[in-house]
Amino acid sequence: MRVLILGGDGYLGWPTAMRFSARGHEVAVVDNFSRRRWHVQHGTGSLTPIGSLVDRVEAWHQVSGDEIGVFVGSIEDGDFVDRVIAETLPETIIHYGEQPSAPYSMKSRATAVETQYTNVIGTLQLLFSIRDRVPDCHLVKLGTMGEYGTPNIDIEEGFLEIEHKGRRDTLPFPKMPGSLYHLSKVHDSHNIHFACRIWGLRATDLNQGVVYGIETEESARDERLITRFDYDEYFGTVLNRFCVQAVIGHPLTVYGEGGQTRGFLNIRDTLQCVELAASNPAQLGEFRVFNQFTEQFSVSELAELVKRSAEELGYPVEVRTFPNPRIEAERHYYNATNTKLIDLGLKPHLLGEELVRSMLRIIERHKDRVIERAILPTTRWKPGELMGEVEAAERPS
Amino acid sequence: MRVLILGGDGYLGWPTAMRFSARGHEVAVVDNFSRRRWHVQHGTGSLTPIGSLVDRVEAWHQVSGDEIGVFVGSIEDGDFVDRVIAETLPETIIHYGEQPSAPYSMKSRATAVETQYTNVIGTLQLLFSIRDRVPDCHLVKLGTMGEYGTPNIDIEEGFLEIEHKGRRDTLPFPKMPGSLYHLSKVHDSHNIHFACRIWGLRATDLNQGVVYGIETEESARDERLITRFDYDEYFGTVLNRFCVQAVIGHPLTVYGEGGQTRGFLNIRDTLQCVELAASNPAQLGEFRVFNQFTEQFSVSELAELVKRSAEELGYPVEVRTFPNPRIEAERHYYNATNTKLIDLGLKPHLLGEELVRSMLRIIERHKDRVIERAILPTTRWKPGELMGEVEAAERPS
Repeated sequence: MRVLILGGDGYLGWPTAMRFSARGHEVAVVDNFSRRRWHVQHGTGSLTPIGSLVDRVEAWHQVSGDEIGVFVGSIEDGDFVDRVIAETLPETIIHYGEQPSAPYSMKSRATAVETQYTNVIGTLQLLFSIRDRVPDCHLVKLGTMGEYGTPNIDIEEGFLEIEHKGRRDTLPFPKMPGSLYHLSKVHDSHNIHFACRIWGLRATDLNQGVVYGIETEESARDERLITRFDYDEYFGTVLNRFCVQAVIGHPLTVYGEGGQTRGFLNIRDTLQCVELAASNPAQLGEFRVFNQFTEQFSVSELAELVKRSAEELGYPVEVRTFPNPRIEAERHYYNATNTKLIDLGLKPHLLGEELVRSMLRIIERHKDRVIERAILPTTRWKPGELMGEVEAAERPS
Repeated sequence: MRVLILGGDGYLGWPTAMRFSARGHEVAVVDNFSRRRWHVQHGTGSLTPIGSLVDRVEAWHQVSGDEIGVFVGSIEDGDFVDRVIAETLPETIIHYGEQPSAPYSMKSRATAVETQYTNVIGTLQLLFSIRDRVPDCHLVKLGTMGEYGTPNIDIEEGFLEIEHKGRRDTLPFPKMPGSLYHLSKVHDSHNIHFACRIWGLRATDLNQGVVYGIETEESARDERLITRFDYDEYFGTVLNRFCVQAVIGHPLTVYGEGGQTRGFLNIRDTLQCVELAASNPAQLGEFRVFNQFTEQFSVSELAELVKRSAEELGYPVEVRTFPNPRIEAERHYYNATNTKLIDLGLKPHLLGEELVRSMLRIIERHKDRVIERAILPTTRWKPGELMGEVEAAERPS
């Protein structure tokens, strides 16, 4: 299968590229290195010492004998994406090529506009190229569970059968996302659904939970193949960030009450899910939504798990409550369905102390690289709120 | 009240500006003249011989003694919109400043991207300026009934109470819009809802039906005050277009079976609705949705109404079925709620033969200006479909 991976230099994109290459597919990746650029702008970086994309592609070639094609450019540039697709004629496109951070989207007006422009216009340009160049191609798009928000009813997979005033219809699940980043993914979902309905394209929207973990089967084969690992306020997701905090002796930063509950999955399961979606494609004209997570946890539960696991390794850990920089429910009902990928054969790697300890051991090897000032949240969902409070909370109690 | 009207040079924006000015409010308008530019690009124009914006503002001053402020620029330009809002400090913003055509958004990749960029990024820039400059300001945003599509259940006003697996929540009404333009309005609605939820802004989203009519109370006071009137494939909505076709002896262009049913309203009722929304503002933090139409009609019903009305005036009228350039249901259930504006006091001007005849008489005065080649649809929702069929249908039977 010819597979094109957008965002192939990223945390998930690079391991995905190696996985499909290892399975014998013809793989090309696209990236514009925006994540690296954002890190440079913030004076931050990956915990893991990743090589350049071409260095990693070269290392992969040495290790596996397989080639991965590289295209450098932005999908918001319609001519560029059109040329790449005309040249590679992909049968599957796996689309990670977006600005992926909620706090980054809420940082400033400029980053908000950048996020919605990059994500919505980039995906729209992509849809036109698929329509005009490879209309049979299966688009596997990374969305997020955050598109749904935290409704007071069970979250279904993309659609909801509604009975209203004696009539019935199955309609898109209503969305109440919690950031301008999450909104960009909602807009994408609506646009992609339209492209399937009107143009007959085929797509799978993977509403992914929060991913944790570092190593995958392929990256473990050579240290030059390691993927990036972020722990900073913008790109570090909660469990990864807690693990880094535990190793460097920083209090675990629980925002607010800690009752915020979300779906989570191991990076190894991300690869399984994307593979399952790609090898069981949607039908032409079909817009499928899979909720891609394996377990639900609250933030407090994760903090306690990391604390227990780290203390076993001899790290003393403090869990500390910080004023919540986000506007979100801190106690809420949350029950999301996730059976479609299980039905396709997903075998989850569940989260436990042993897994956390294996992450802690990898982090330990790189702990000298941690830039500590990048950890605490400075972005407020509502500017002007909480000023001074964080500073107070930062002082040792 | 200080009122800022975005898109104040347009079909609805200009009459709205005069209405608020006539009521004694302090009015300023913003426009970047994109509608005039798009017409120039297509070699088309308004049926009515409209003056420039400054000429009309000057004429309004002569007629009424009142001043309307003018700002020329694009709201996608964040610095511009920020400066305008800082200078005018509006208490109400009425936002018509978007690309308003479904066929234009489906014309090409470039116009699709332009539509979503202009509408989504423009509105996002506006939300930031409101948040940072006038957080108490009431945003009255023009959306469209087309955001809902044609679900098989009754359409409610923005939100739906859902019971699912024994639990309940009131969530945004699910959206299945029919064009990339309509999608841009769905994206806007989600972004505005977020700004109200997170930043505490206040907004009314007017999901407007298809507007018809030419004259309003204020424009009737002097012929220099007339508003634009479009009849071309891109900017001419169905009833206005049928009326022009009847006057020039062109067959009425029913697309497909003609069972497509939508909500409609008179331009005079648009002004009433916007006034009612502005004088009964949303609460801080509230995102309100009103379905703004007064009656539902199918396309065939409108064609028959125009035919009857025009024949009374001596125009022979042929109703002809054309291959549908859109992908849409041509027979479907449609029942939308529209009680909120009625509850606020809306007194509808209902559609009847007399009203159609009054439109026909105004059109008659300008019929020499009609550019006939601009009428038939050339844009296809799915490119490559129907090629040749329209050409066949165009030949006299």
